Amino acid sequence: MNNLQEIYNLVRKKTEEICNPLISEDYVIQSLEEVSPPKWHIAHITWFFENFILIPFYPNYKLFNQNYNFLFNSYYNSVGKMIDRPIRKLLARPPISEIYEYRKYVDFYMNEFLKNEISNEIKLILETGLNHEQQHQELLFMDIKSNFYYNPLKPQYIKSKKYESEYQELKFISIDDDIAIIGHQDDNFFFDNEKPVHKAYINKFEIANRPVLNGEYLEFIENDGYDDSRYWLSDGWIVKNKNQWTSPMYWEKIDNEWFVFSLNGLEKIDNNSPVTHVSYYEAEAYAHFRDSRLPTEFEWEYIAKKQKVSGNFMDNGFYKAIPNNDNSIIKQMFGDVWEWTSSSYLPYVGFKSLYEGLGEYNGKFMVNQVVLRGGCSVTPKNHIRSTYRNFFYPENRWQFSGIRLAK
Amino acid sequence: MNNLQEIYNLVRKKTEEICNPLISEDYVIQSLEEVSPPKWHIAHITWFFENFILIPFYPNYKLFNQNYNFLFNSYYNSVGKMIDRPIRKLLARPPISEIYEYRKYVDFYMNEFLKNEISNEIKLILETGLNHEQQHQELLFMDIKSNFYYNPLKPQYIKSKKYESEYQELKFISIDDDIAIIGHQDDNFFFDNEKPVHKAYINKFEIANRPVLNGEYLEFIENDGYDDSRYWLSDGWIVKNKNQWTSPMYWEKIDNEWFVFSLNGLEKIDNNSPVTHVSYYEAEAYAHFRDSRLPTEFEWEYIAKKQKVSGNFMDNGFYKAIPNNDNSIIKQMFGDVWEWTSSSYLPYVGFKSLYEGLGEYNGKFMVNQVVLRGGCSVTPKNHIRSTYRNFFYPENRWQFSGIRLAK
Amino acid sequence: MNNLQEIYNLVRKKTEEICNPLISEDYVIQSLEEVSPPKWHIAHITWFFENFILIPFYPNYKLFNQNYNFLFNSYYNSVGKMIDRPIRKLLARPPISEIYEYRKYVDFYMNEFLKNEISNEIKLILETGLNHEQQHQELLFMDIKSNFYYNPLKPQYIKSKKYESEYQELKFISIDDDIAIIGHQDDNFFFDNEKPVHKAYINKFEIANRPVLNGEYLEFIENDGYDDSRYWLSDGWIVKNKNQWTSPMYWEKIDNEWFVFSLNGLEKIDNNSPVTHVSYYEAEAYAHFRDSRLPTEFEWEYIAKKQKVSGNFMDNGFYKAIPNNDNSIIKQMFGDVWEWTSSSYLPYVGFKSLYEGLGEYNGKFMVNQVVLRGGCSVTPKNHIRSTYRNFFYPENRWQFSGIRLAK
Amino acid sequence: MNNLQEIYNLVRKKTEEICNPLISEDYVIQSLEEVSPPKWHIAHITWFFENFILIPFYPNYKLFNQNYNFLFNSYYNSVGKMIDRPIRKLLARPPISEIYEYRKYVDFYMNEFLKNEISNEIKLILETGLNHEQQHQELLFMDIKSNFYYNPLKPQYIKSKKYESEYQELKFISIDDDIAIIGHQDDNFFFDNEKPVHKAYINKFEIANRPVLNGEYLEFIENDGYDDSRYWLSDGWIVKNKNQWTSPMYWEKIDNEWFVFSLNGLEKIDNNSPVTHVSYYEAEAYAHFRDSRLPTEFEWEYIAKKQKVSGNFMDNGFYKAIPNNDNSIIKQMFGDVWEWTSSSYLPYVGFKSLYEGLGEYNGKFMVNQVVLRGGCSVTPKNHIRSTYRNFFYPENRWQFSGIRLAK
Repeated sequence: MNNLQEIYNLVRKKTEEICNPLISEDYVIQSLEEVSPPKWHIAHITWFFENFILIPFYPNYKLFNQNYNFLFNSYYNSVGKMIDRPIRKLLARPPISEIYEYRKYVDFYMNEFLKNEISNEIKLILETGLNHEQQHQELLFMDIKSNFYYNPLKPQYIKSKKYESEYQELKFISIDDDIAIIGHQDDNFFFDNEKPVHKAYINKFEIANRPVLNGEYLEFIENDGYDDSRYWLSDGWIVKNKNQWTSPMYWEKIDNEWFVFSLNGLEKIDNNSPVTHVSYYEAEAYAHFRDSRLPTEFEWEYIAKKQKVSGNFMDNGFYKAIPNNDNSIIKQMFGDVWEWTSSSYLPYVGFKSLYEGLGEYNGKFMVNQVVLRGGCSVTPKNHIRSTYRNFFYPENRWQFSGIRLAK
Repeated sequence: MNNLQEIYNLVRKKTEEICNPLISEDYVIQSLEEVSPPKWHIAHITWFFENFILIPFYPNYKLFNQNYNFLFNSYYNSVGKMIDRPIRKLLARPPISEIYEYRKYVDFYMNEFLKNEISNEIKLILETGLNHEQQHQELLFMDIKSNFYYNPLKPQYIKSKKYESEYQELKFISIDDDIAIIGHQDDNFFFDNEKPVHKAYINKFEIANRPVLNGEYLEFIENDGYDDSRYWLSDGWIVKNKNQWTSPMYWEKIDNEWFVFSLNGLEKIDNNSPVTHVSYYEAEAYAHFRDSRLPTEFEWEYIAKKQKVSGNFMDNGFYKAIPNNDNSIIKQMFGDVWEWTSSSYLPYVGFKSLYEGLGEYNGKFMVNQVVLRGGCSVTPKNHIRSTYRNFFYPENRWQFSGIRLAK
Repeated sequence: MNNLQEIYNLVRKKTEEICNPLISEDYVIQSLEEVSPPKWHIAHITWFFENFILIPFYPNYKLFNQNYNFLFNSYYNSVGKMIDRPIRKLLARPPISEIYEYRKYVDFYMNEFLKNEISNEIKLILETGLNHEQQHQELLFMDIKSNFYYNPLKPQYIKSKKYESEYQELKFISIDDDIAIIGHQDDNFFFDNEKPVHKAYINKFEIANRPVLNGEYLEFIENDGYDDSRYWLSDGWIVKNKNQWTSPMYWEKIDNEWFVFSLNGLEKIDNNSPVTHVSYYEAEAYAHFRDSRLPTEFEWEYIAKKQKVSGNFMDNGFYKAIPNNDNSIIKQMFGDVWEWTSSSYLPYVGFKSLYEGLGEYNGKFMVNQVVLRGGCSVTPKNHIRSTYRNFFYPENRWQFSGIRLAK
Repeated sequence: MNNLQEIYNLVRKKTEEICNPLISEDYVIQSLEEVSPPKWHIAHITWFFENFILIPFYPNYKLFNQNYNFLFNSYYNSVGKMIDRPIRKLLARPPISEIYEYRKYVDFYMNEFLKNEISNEIKLILETGLNHEQQHQELLFMDIKSNFYYNPLKPQYIKSKKYESEYQELKFISIDDDIAIIGHQDDNFFFDNEKPVHKAYINKFEIANRPVLNGEYLEFIENDGYDDSRYWLSDGWIVKNKNQWTSPMYWEKIDNEWFVFSLNGLEKIDNNSPVTHVSYYEAEAYAHFRDSRLPTEFEWEYIAKKQKVSGNFMDNGFYKAIPNNDNSIIKQMFGDVWEWTSSSYLPYVGFKSLYEGLGEYNGKFMVNQVVLRGGCSVTPKNHIRSTYRNFFYPENRWQFSGIRLAK
């Protein structure tokens, strides 16, 4: 087995491990509009390899099933007619057992295919497919968590793993004026939204040495932060009221004590862990409450580029943010929680889409969303880098998002 | 095994037969707001016997699972807190295998219980439970049909059964003035909405000798019936436009030919079969198109009381309306299609709810709905009678509803 | 001036008197979806005479303004393209002064026209137009009341008129079985929904001697009637919650005392006056609370046909329901409040629309609505009769609707 | 009359001139959710001076009317309870004549007050009030235009003024790398969102020498630009479909010819005039169609700071964008149309709200909106400057917004 095969099989195996605790009915449901049923994820990431590698490049490849191209396509309008998102939750058929047959079938041919040398063009598609699958690995954690949460039985996905709950003091670190080089520079894989490399002026600022903790966020709640319009953006105030938010997602107050639902089930809040599952509106209101602000994505990248990628990732098996002392001055830039920046998700000046064949992968989402940086406890470690730009709508909070303050 | 046990086990076994063609994922989905996932049906009708018979009357009965009372309760507000309807489609857990364990458990104790003599009071609850289960048998057919239809693969529930497609000429039969006795009179089981017995004046009228056929309804479509506001009730016109209806539910025009989706999959329209899956608005517009009207429920009952209950029911295994020549002058009053009447679903003068313990079974739905009569191809034959009042909202059409004209 | 001219001018003058207290801006607004701006009413009722009498029958009649046919048409789809209802509230132009010019212009030609003998056919259209205008007189009161209410300044339409607040004891009167003749029988004007005359069987029942009073309804409120789902129809419970109703429309609790907004402004509740502005859902819940029911429209008409039309109408100038002792055994059948019946608004058996030219006046609304009988304090007295069928949706309550109990 | 008085009276008089063509009913209506009735504007901008200057600083000032503080407050939550936005369109009372009395009353006291020396603190509030009034002058034009447009009579606000329709060739001008100073620097009035001054790195780019013209935009329409998802942002595609946009706002195709509604009524499209009333989504799609992009707000400001503020403003009396040759290389940066930038409306690094008393004037809107620059044909000339940041939601298009391309 050569190196590409090995990487391919590792990523593919990981997805199946994530789904190990699921029963067949778990694969079908969709608790929120933004969630996709696990069955759809599993089929869709397989379809990517079939559609973009096997069909065009494997001689005489025979489709596993004619319908799958239609059923498991997503926003790739360029590829063919796709099914409406609301229909995804109705795909009781094909059964998940058949989807795993499909997976085996595609994996078999992909392994055959990768035994031979492949062109750089195909290698880029392969890497895109694997990074795409890793994104869906994180989505699987997000979606399973939500699906389990809305079940009144509150099932446990996996047993809890021990960690030490240690408090880290909050400090603000000063950063001087500079001209930063922004964007992806080395030869490794990147998404097109990390390009082109360009310069940005960094004005003097201060950045928190770690993310905001549950215990700190609790003070915001207990000081009526959710009822004080002065802290909130006008749109945020409307969204909060409409959804009747009084805490981050997954928090529940039971008999006057705060609990949080994690993939380990319902647990008591740990005050020393980073607050997770807050929307941009909550992050912004919290920063206002602390007379602070969120960092821009350029400020964030400027700091992160001086650090090693290390932290609490999916690979650690916690699947939730935990207290962390990584011995750097500015801690936990990577892992634990995606950090909301104050930057809107926009194209870098001179942006060009790289994936014509794959259908404008990133460009068409560049409005109304906000950039998050650094990865989280359910992101694969080798998926992340300092220039990686994640993005969600300001009202989203089913992703593992947290807050780092700046001034 | 005594007679009550026998009846109990027959009804319960029938439900399981209906679910035989389903795979575990089929039990979870919900294609329309008015549909419940099959898993919920199966658990809910079992819960009825546990909750209203075993808990109050079986000495030292031990609950199968504490959570089930909460999860599988429905509109019985009087019994306890119930889960919101939108959550039903998220019940991946408990798995369907466990629900069948629950079913076996309750059936075991019910059989034990029924070995002994039971009081008339309990017998009434038992009969109510069995009729309730039969209603859910019909709902299972309705809901499975819809769930399969919205799957782009259009799965087939069961293979087609042969029948003869014969045309019956349309005639209108004259009925003279009379005073009718309305409501349930004999000693057999009835629902409270069939009472009290009272008198109604029947003015001279004419009634069609059979339901409207697909071929006749097609003329309405082809004469732009769906685009001519003169035929439609004002509210119906709005609903039709909003939902963009251009034919009955389950009809599809493919390459200029009309098909209909049935539990046998997608089939060519049979012009001689009764049109099915029309809303009240469509039934009303069609009648208007034919310079006719729908019969009142009293007119319908007046005629039906003179007939034997016989026709194409669930027991026949067609699961769709077919041409039928039952040798009576006024044919197919029972079976094939539920017939929309022109009567709103209202309490009979002097109505009293019979099921205090069971939580006002029928009374609270007596507004905004329309009465249908006669049962259909997925109604158990021994569930129906001439006084039986079914009811749906005028925009509903996922039930097997058809049209009989009057003048 | 002949008799028809006299009647015509009397009705037309009344409309203008109703609008006397309005300023130009009052004519433009629309506080609820079901309300039309007064300017639209004034123009529309004038358009009726221009369109259905002057245009077809007055030789060489010249339109006042080409646009008006388009602007002030309503549901008469048969006449021409009409403007969308939501646009009505945007008709700042033409100014109300021009609308009154239009009115004068049409009145001038109508008076010219009526100087000569007219055919029976035209006479029927004329009478329909005048009855149509009277309906809009009542709508003007309803709509002005709502428009003034939603203005935070709570303007007063007219000063209060004195009346004596006297309590009438509640009694139930027994009525025996009979066959009733239902529908309009004499030679005077009627709407097509009052026909054809037919028979209905009246089963023995009891009827309240007067409508429900504010003081009695207050007991329902204070006994948590709005929070007890047992009293409510299922659909009513949903509507009540959605709209957060805790009392009839126009009631406000200020410093622990109940007030009601009338056309005289905000006033203290009079316990002896009939409760007004309740929806069908509230009427039904109240009846349930009192272990009673609402009468059917046939029961109501059977009694009303034995009485003289007399009571507190628009002509009395109170513009609200007041206590009333009309010396009959069954009091206030006419005037004060429209009485919700338990009957859905459906065609009488054999119904035919009379107004082909005028565009199916009543027939297309015969679904989802409920019949009210007897007229109210803002109905012109000579507009009402025992066979008159008014109708509203069960959630409407901006009309002057009240409750009479039956058993 | 001193200088401050003079400025005050000039601005106030201008507002009244704008309203001269209106009749009383015009003041009440609201054609879109984002529109406010003119009456509300007139009262609200007067209330500003009463509330923030006369009440706190004029000795013994007596309120014109107690209710006005409640009625004509807007988003200034800090000042008191305000009325819900949907209620604004119901304010038939107080009549507009009374609002003008209010205006005279406040103007009288303001003139009295301004006869004396005022502190710098008060001067800042005064200037804010006058700039606030100028913003509402532009809003009045926007709102009147929309209100007139939705009236089926399409009234004309003012007669057309002649201009020469001359075509300007499109060129792209190259700009080199630089570090720009961003934000307001001189001593004149500014809004807090223009501060603090900070540096931004400008990467080499090209900018169009003039805005996009109607004739050019027509090519986008005629090349099926509105039907080709490749050009559109994903959110834009959804909004366009939902609203069924097929052209800019106010465009209408009549008998195969394009017309546009302006304050002069319905007119033929002038191909040489800048396209106006496009949303951000349309601007972005158009740029994509031309293989271009929109400039960032920093790029825009960097160029604009080198130019004089001059162009087609409200003062010119056209009230629509016209062809323009201002002899500069980069033309029409100011006036004619607000130019959509690609920048989200976000706080400058280090932003602090200046108007604590006036209730966080700008800060709370800094999410989900996009920056527009340069003013338009209904902006008062002395209201605009190179650092001025206007902002709207990407789907808004009732403002006079256009497009300038960059590369």
